[in-house]
Amino acid sequence: MSANWGSHIELSLFGESHGEAIGIVIGNLPAGIRLDMEQIRWYMKRRAPGQNKMSTPRQEKDEVHIVSGLVDGVTTGAPLCAMIYNQNQHSKDYSELKACMRPGHSDYPAYMKYHGFNDVRGGGHFSGRLTAPLVFAGSIARQILKEKGIIVGAHIQSIHHIQDQPFPVDIDETLLEQLSSKMYPTLDEDVFLQMQEVIESARLQQDSVGGIVECAIINVPAGIGNPFFDSIESHLSPLLFSIPAVKSVSFGQRNITEMYGHEANDAYYYQEGQVKTKTNHNGGVTGGITNGMPIVFQVGIKPTPSISQIQETVNVQTQTNTQIQVKGRHDPCIVPRAVVVVESMAALGILDMLG
Amino acid sequence: MSANWGSHIELSLFGESHGEAIGIVIGNLPAGIRLDMEQIRWYMKRRAPGQNKMSTPRQEKDEVHIVSGLVDGVTTGAPLCAMIYNQNQHSKDYSELKACMRPGHSDYPAYMKYHGFNDVRGGGHFSGRLTAPLVFAGSIARQILKEKGIIVGAHIQSIHHIQDQPFPVDIDETLLEQLSSKMYPTLDEDVFLQMQEVIESARLQQDSVGGIVECAIINVPAGIGNPFFDSIESHLSPLLFSIPAVKSVSFGQRNITEMYGHEANDAYYYQEGQVKTKTNHNGGVTGGITNGMPIVFQVGIKPTPSISQIQETVNVQTQTNTQIQVKGRHDPCIVPRAVVVVESMAALGILDMLG
Amino acid sequence: MSANWGSHIELSLFGESHGEAIGIVIGNLPAGIRLDMEQIRWYMKRRAPGQNKMSTPRQEKDEVHIVSGLVDGVTTGAPLCAMIYNQNQHSKDYSELKACMRPGHSDYPAYMKYHGFNDVRGGGHFSGRLTAPLVFAGSIARQILKEKGIIVGAHIQSIHHIQDQPFPVDIDETLLEQLSSKMYPTLDEDVFLQMQEVIESARLQQDSVGGIVECAIINVPAGIGNPFFDSIESHLSPLLFSIPAVKSVSFGQRNITEMYGHEANDAYYYQEGQVKTKTNHNGGVTGGITNGMPIVFQVGIKPTPSISQIQETVNVQTQTNTQIQVKGRHDPCIVPRAVVVVESMAALGILDMLG
Amino acid sequence: MSANWGSHIELSLFGESHGEAIGIVIGNLPAGIRLDMEQIRWYMKRRAPGQNKMSTPRQEKDEVHIVSGLVDGVTTGAPLCAMIYNQNQHSKDYSELKACMRPGHSDYPAYMKYHGFNDVRGGGHFSGRLTAPLVFAGSIARQILKEKGIIVGAHIQSIHHIQDQPFPVDIDETLLEQLSSKMYPTLDEDVFLQMQEVIESARLQQDSVGGIVECAIINVPAGIGNPFFDSIESHLSPLLFSIPAVKSVSFGQRNITEMYGHEANDAYYYQEGQVKTKTNHNGGVTGGITNGMPIVFQVGIKPTPSISQIQETVNVQTQTNTQIQVKGRHDPCIVPRAVVVVESMAALGILDMLG
Repeated sequence: MSANWGSHIELSLFGESHGEAIGIVIGNLPAGIRLDMEQIRWYMKRRAPGQNKMSTPRQEKDEVHIVSGLVDGVTTGAPLCAMIYNQNQHSKDYSELKACMRPGHSDYPAYMKYHGFNDVRGGGHFSGRLTAPLVFAGSIARQILKEKGIIVGAHIQSIHHIQDQPFPVDIDETLLEQLSSKMYPTLDEDVFLQMQEVIESARLQQDSVGGIVECAIINVPAGIGNPFFDSIESHLSPLLFSIPAVKSVSFGQRNITEMYGHEANDAYYYQEGQVKTKTNHNGGVTGGITNGMPIVFQVGIKPTPSISQIQETVNVQTQTNTQIQVKGRHDPCIVPRAVVVVESMAALGILDMLG
Repeated sequence: MSANWGSHIELSLFGESHGEAIGIVIGNLPAGIRLDMEQIRWYMKRRAPGQNKMSTPRQEKDEVHIVSGLVDGVTTGAPLCAMIYNQNQHSKDYSELKACMRPGHSDYPAYMKYHGFNDVRGGGHFSGRLTAPLVFAGSIARQILKEKGIIVGAHIQSIHHIQDQPFPVDIDETLLEQLSSKMYPTLDEDVFLQMQEVIESARLQQDSVGGIVECAIINVPAGIGNPFFDSIESHLSPLLFSIPAVKSVSFGQRNITEMYGHEANDAYYYQEGQVKTKTNHNGGVTGGITNGMPIVFQVGIKPTPSISQIQETVNVQTQTNTQIQVKGRHDPCIVPRAVVVVESMAALGILDMLG
Repeated sequence: MSANWGSHIELSLFGESHGEAIGIVIGNLPAGIRLDMEQIRWYMKRRAPGQNKMSTPRQEKDEVHIVSGLVDGVTTGAPLCAMIYNQNQHSKDYSELKACMRPGHSDYPAYMKYHGFNDVRGGGHFSGRLTAPLVFAGSIARQILKEKGIIVGAHIQSIHHIQDQPFPVDIDETLLEQLSSKMYPTLDEDVFLQMQEVIESARLQQDSVGGIVECAIINVPAGIGNPFFDSIESHLSPLLFSIPAVKSVSFGQRNITEMYGHEANDAYYYQEGQVKTKTNHNGGVTGGITNGMPIVFQVGIKPTPSISQIQETVNVQTQTNTQIQVKGRHDPCIVPRAVVVVESMAALGILDMLG
Repeated sequence: MSANWGSHIELSLFGESHGEAIGIVIGNLPAGIRLDMEQIRWYMKRRAPGQNKMSTPRQEKDEVHIVSGLVDGVTTGAPLCAMIYNQNQHSKDYSELKACMRPGHSDYPAYMKYHGFNDVRGGGHFSGRLTAPLVFAGSIARQILKEKGIIVGAHIQSIHHIQDQPFPVDIDETLLEQLSSKMYPTLDEDVFLQMQEVIESARLQQDSVGGIVECAIINVPAGIGNPFFDSIESHLSPLLFSIPAVKSVSFGQRNITEMYGHEANDAYYYQEGQVKTKTNHNGGVTGGITNGMPIVFQVGIKPTPSISQIQETVNVQTQTNTQIQVKGRHDPCIVPRAVVVVESMAALGILDMLG
């Protein structure tokens, strides 16, 4: 499956950055859910571009238009198709890109796969803009999960070399909702100022930076998941790697490979009749199955490949080496906007797993 | 899918560590392949336990018995079922484990998922021993890939804090086959001595260590993969996370989140009519699709959870806190044995993707 | 998978009869195909309602609006989303249907599945109108198949008790294209007049009739398909049973269960170096795999459940027995319009199987 | 998926008629089920060959050996692998079949698909013998379904032209269990004598006959299934078409295409607070979803292709026309043995659908 995804919740993603619209079909949603549009709009806004100088100046309202599956604001159980019409395309910016492959982008692989027929305007179907419908779908998943007491939230773990502190062992709903209410969520509130400096400095040099998002899912009962091919990690990782620019996914303590066994093993104990672990180096999952502790994982995002510096590349039409200067509107750092995308994918993955 | 996997090559894994046998059914293999049993045996031996003091003293010959799908040593195209009979079970070692949950293991999640009916002897179906049939399947995949010129190989990137050098940008068949011929493959030959010291030191303290395996797949043509849900990363990561003790998967340069865009972007150039990149920080994949450069990724493996030190845990039958000392035969470090497992999963994933 | 379908070609169907639009996302289409819109329009027209008194008087132009996946009329390889906007909804006709379940319709099962939240206007997502986007998708599949020499075509095998002759053993492209050029394709041209009489007679009595569509796919090479779970029959039948009102699917000679083995077995012979069979009682498939002869199957379609006669039923709100008279615009026989739907599903199924 | 099947219950089928063994891996079974081996043995016996002159004289005990997934007779939740060792192969009978293609069999399609590498002894992986592990898997499914009150049963609807009466509208557990207790279940007890005569007459003429099995599943709640791609019919039909020699599947009244709408529509009414239908022409399914009435369907089975008469065919090695006389042990009619296979597939399909 490439355009479609899911065993229970089913997704089908479509659209191009500079086409008429982007959208998603969400199948197998439960009937009878009144969508919390205000909450959805907030999540969409967290991802939306053009909100300050740290992100691309492209202005898109990202208003979701629901085509099917909803009557009087309530899900019918039929596939829900949601569209976001593109408003603010500047296709002229991308006219030369048919021939000159932008380094770090999908241009050359896509050229080879699609024999040059792919839509190159704004990255076409490969654009990070396609994460907007994914956030919409994820927002619905979060609403459904919340009714089961399951909450998803994330913070910016790092931008370039600037690190936030990691999640504590105990993660409560209040913390996650507080993070979700921020445009730039960090656990250490001051660290984002340093992060901003690094981003601004990259922007001024027509460069870009990446970083890491750490995400937690709390209140998933113990016993969810499977050994081997459909472990929690195996079920979530394809969704997380579907997010453009994600290059790594790690569960639990990021440096667990440098720990000793006696450190890495999380000791169990009973707390008010509930089994807990004193540490959570395994990120709530052992043997591919949840142990009831928060599911914690980190997602590594590379620096935005769109930079305005002159770069070495090839022209596939003339088959010669050349240089390229990518014009257009770029994010010097997409990590802050990616936080809600990571949360959305996590929510979709866990909801699908709950069956 | 949990017990089954695959779109083209189909896998179905079964068996328990201390049951009669472990095995795998491999569907959709091409007909007419004469299995290279000598090569398969070598790959199996690289994973097998009991070869020296760094691994568990359990002796298993891991001889593969093929039940179906093969006539006169040649694949028929029908599902190939392969069995490995267990010979050397010491089930007495594990008698108390029904109640006391080993930290870091699948015991407690499995207890919750299966309501205590799971086979706990030797970890049952969760045992790392189940990777033996996966290596068998992977060996066949490698043979098929090799006929297409595609080679897979890996080295031990790190054990605890001891680091090998990373793969170079150019990786040729000779290097990968050299690595595959070693029981403890490292690029820097001397570094394994230091790794051995760390492992031996952990063993003496009844402790364990983990590490990182770096794997490369070369000669995959540009244009393989998909945007979003079935990207190269999304297709390989579930297989890699299926390997017991794997906690992280990263593609390309492991520290790409700390690079600037102008560094992370791999510049294209023509070399003898072929598009190459000067660096390979993206690990051969951008936009989820191959660019023709080696696919490179790292797999983080936690320290073996089986350690003989006394650990805090719970007794789920008495519902009290308790202590446990895990007896039996343990690997102080499974990373060297995991190298061929990682290679096998990579081979299966890429072969499946080629369709 | 319920809303999504396919291993290679991927479909995601959405929309409701009286909502804003119906549509489909088609994933994994090859890039570089210039859609033959004229041909597509003709296939769409064959399915469209309102063309004469034998079908529902609802007028819908069924104009396809392509949202994504197409640039300058050529497929890009990205998911192609196609929408058909609804124009001519008379939702007032259906206002009472929330409580009174129409016999033979999805009303009651859907009420139970969706707890009453399903869109009941015009049958909502269950409407036969949803076959319009399926015909669109099938038309693209046929265009791709035709480039491989594979042709699909069908005729009306029966309406109520009136029978057309069956397909001959040899079916050539000319015959199939001739059938596809007709609104009411039969092999015996005169028989459709009798069929029309039966339909008209049913209409006058506010009743309806069903029938059988026989479909052929020619020039599929021998050796396509699989034993057991993904046989040709197992791959095509779910698509055919997805068509509303289809109740049976049979491959080969419909009365093969009443033949003797020596009759049912199709004798092989060489014709100009090609293996053929003298008869085709097995419909081109034995052991789940094609033998190179035309794939032939019949699809049984029940009489349209929408009839204007008074019927016994229940009111699920008052939980009492009651009567219902279904008003609105109904087809006394949907079989003629279903021919192109059957062809479309067959084309999608075979294209998906070719990989 | 070809060797693997299932969304919740997962199957992987392997083995050849004259190889070492045939078997199946069943994944995702619930843990904690004590297998009713006596019941399983009975179902296996109903399918087993060699019980009288109506079936093949090949004697096979079909004893199931369980390799994994079971401890002390109770499922563990891990994949259950079951093997049936072949004991009574007469491979010499089949030595010439590499070249001469038996009409009506998989020989020629398999030769083309597998380029002649397929195991031809006894039909290899295509043998009807592979239904033995399917009946084993189905027996477990039936045990699980029975705990939910869901019962499956079937009768021989016809052999050649001899017809049993159809299922009544009301089908209770007693009737289905009575049918399941018979080797030759018919509703009209006398009709089987006539069927036997037809079979015996065919046997004497070295010929074969086919027939129809009618199956019912009762007590499935209303609201199970989906519109379109995963309707009840779409979910069950691929399993039913996986049974060798099955050529047709029809739901509800077999001749529904010859009814008028006012007849075909099943009128609803309340009976003791429960919604029922007065007739069941739709076989318990409308719109792809159950309505709470018995799910009823018919499966058409062609005459056994193995007959001892001389038949025209081709020799693919010499590429000439030739004749063949199939020696060996043949069933003049497999319909009686197929009854329990149909029941098994129905049980697996519905259990999978219940999730």
